[in-house]
Amino acid sequence: MTLADWLDGYDERDWQTAGPDAGPVRFALVGLGWWTTDVAMPAIANSAFCETTVLVSSSTEKAERVAAGTDIEHALTYEQYHDGAATDAYDAVYVGTPNALHLEYAETAAAYGKAILTEKPIEATVERGRQMVDAAAEADVQLMTGYRMQVEPAVRRARKLIASGFVGDPVQASGSNTQSLLSIIPDTDQWRLDPDLTGYGTTVMDIGIYPINTARYLLDRDPVEASARMRSTQEAFADVPDEHATFTLTFEGDVPLVTTTSQNAQSDSRLTITGTEGLVELRPAFHGTATLRVARGEMEAEITSGFDEHRETRDLFDYFADRLLTGGSVGPDGRQGLHDLRTIRAIHEAAEGDEAVEIPASEA
Amino acid sequence: MTLADWLDGYDERDWQTAGPDAGPVRFALVGLGWWTTDVAMPAIANSAFCETTVLVSSSTEKAERVAAGTDIEHALTYEQYHDGAATDAYDAVYVGTPNALHLEYAETAAAYGKAILTEKPIEATVERGRQMVDAAAEADVQLMTGYRMQVEPAVRRARKLIASGFVGDPVQASGSNTQSLLSIIPDTDQWRLDPDLTGYGTTVMDIGIYPINTARYLLDRDPVEASARMRSTQEAFADVPDEHATFTLTFEGDVPLVTTTSQNAQSDSRLTITGTEGLVELRPAFHGTATLRVARGEMEAEITSGFDEHRETRDLFDYFADRLLTGGSVGPDGRQGLHDLRTIRAIHEAAEGDEAVEIPASEA
Repeated sequence: MTLADWLDGYDERDWQTAGPDAGPVRFALVGLGWWTTDVAMPAIANSAFCETTVLVSSSTEKAERVAAGTDIEHALTYEQYHDGAATDAYDAVYVGTPNALHLEYAETAAAYGKAILTEKPIEATVERGRQMVDAAAEADVQLMTGYRMQVEPAVRRARKLIASGFVGDPVQASGSNTQSLLSIIPDTDQWRLDPDLTGYGTTVMDIGIYPINTARYLLDRDPVEASARMRSTQEAFADVPDEHATFTLTFEGDVPLVTTTSQNAQSDSRLTITGTEGLVELRPAFHGTATLRVARGEMEAEITSGFDEHRETRDLFDYFADRLLTGGSVGPDGRQGLHDLRTIRAIHEAAEGDEAVEIPASEA
Repeated sequence: MTLADWLDGYDERDWQTAGPDAGPVRFALVGLGWWTTDVAMPAIANSAFCETTVLVSSSTEKAERVAAGTDIEHALTYEQYHDGAATDAYDAVYVGTPNALHLEYAETAAAYGKAILTEKPIEATVERGRQMVDAAAEADVQLMTGYRMQVEPAVRRARKLIASGFVGDPVQASGSNTQSLLSIIPDTDQWRLDPDLTGYGTTVMDIGIYPINTARYLLDRDPVEASARMRSTQEAFADVPDEHATFTLTFEGDVPLVTTTSQNAQSDSRLTITGTEGLVELRPAFHGTATLRVARGEMEAEITSGFDEHRETRDLFDYFADRLLTGGSVGPDGRQGLHDLRTIRAIHEAAEGDEAVEIPASEA
């Protein structure tokens, strides 16, 4: 079999089921941090099936300032949003607040029968993530966790290659996701360093989650055990345990993933799946333009999707809208987001107790 | 500081202290497997300071067959070697036998006052490695473990970059070394799969040792704790525990190295050291032409030394000869080889007991 056979049919939007004229799905965006304004809003503007109709922030002033110069009609405070203002103007809610605030906005969305797309991680703790999943189920609304890697064409291609036997039996995985948080956001008081808002910690919650979820997606199996080491040495990281963290997850079928991740290191991102017959590697994986390198015996190829965070986020919204418009089920649903939180909790417990911790398949 | 400043003075043989006319050091090569005949012998032929004068094998016939068509005068059996044949014809001994046979040939070399260059790992077990170190010390002969990465120009450059602060504070390391042993040597009865000859296992002893020793060399510090997972599933690996292995080593200063390694997987080799300010990465690292990638903030560079196993092995012999000729001390000496065996033993113990194992700095 030639490498071209394995790589045939590389398709950007292979997930799309709605016709080109479907939609739009109208979104209320909750939480107007830089990711919402600089990435999510332009992504929606460039999308096929989505439209921003409502902005929700701490103050009317902030929401109106962001809405200025756009067609967005409704600028609400959090209180107005909870009180049901403009519920006729949106079909779905995007929650882009700090982790520990996801639940309250999602519960309100569910109460008004609105679909929910929440940023990853789904919430700050397993217990609160569970409440969100329950609220969405009780209200019978769709809930998606915003894992943009799952609509990244290079990642989807890698998953199909693995499923079709390109790497043989998966043997091991190795990932890395590092950045300098305080260079990106030069503020030692930011919410990602505040355990009341971030949850179990900063690094694994915020960026370690990428190799965790992407490896799950590529291998199509769940992690069952975690071991980990973490440490914080800089003053700015005094309230969180994981300025730096390394962890090993054992996936079903005894396939380990070893990972390095840090919020205070040179920026880098990579994910490698090695099998008996080949390997697939994404690098950069989670930031910048994802590049897929594949090797099998002496054959090697490198594929760049041309997608970066912006196009990935555009397709994340379109994917969610597609499922809402056609009634299809969402891949990275609330239960998947919840299992990743269980995994992150196990990583923190393993680091604290210095021993391997089982990851329960579901809560008792 | 520009990247050019950091990369200035890239020098191939910065370890050389002997003058161009020094030597030669005359070697007896013990164990005529493919590495000795196909890599070590041509390397010595291309070296500046070394010469092969004696071949030692299980039979006179084999030694004479290998010597045929060369200038090598002495073809000995193991028994003749032990009995002191041709001791006037060589100054140093290269031991290229299976791991568990290193000791006996090294002890004979020491008894005749000959310097010893032994393949890595130094022996099959810590106890036997300790005996070799003691034998060399008592006889006052130099003993070197054959870590060819330590004369690889890209590796030496990376070590200097780290020492000079290029990566800031080292935070984490990630390594990989995988290959398909049975594709390279299609024989299920080979010594690397026989615990009586290989020692603690196959994968960590044979190829996991590369990221272990190279990370030690790059970071210039020792590992103090190991945790690990390993498994064997194929029939050919039934007698060894580590067809596949992943391990985490914690180095002094709380810097973890996570590693994937396998004797039954797609071939790959990589070593990444990530710091607060930059990273250095070797890939390929341990096989083929080593390539160094360095990054610091937005600066990036890639450096290929042009060295492969053959030129590395040539310089390994020349480095050892240089030290013998000038009386200098050897970097990767017997004690270093012994500490790596302690590390490998700890990795196996950690995998077996499913808990972290301390690596003693020296034996009680």
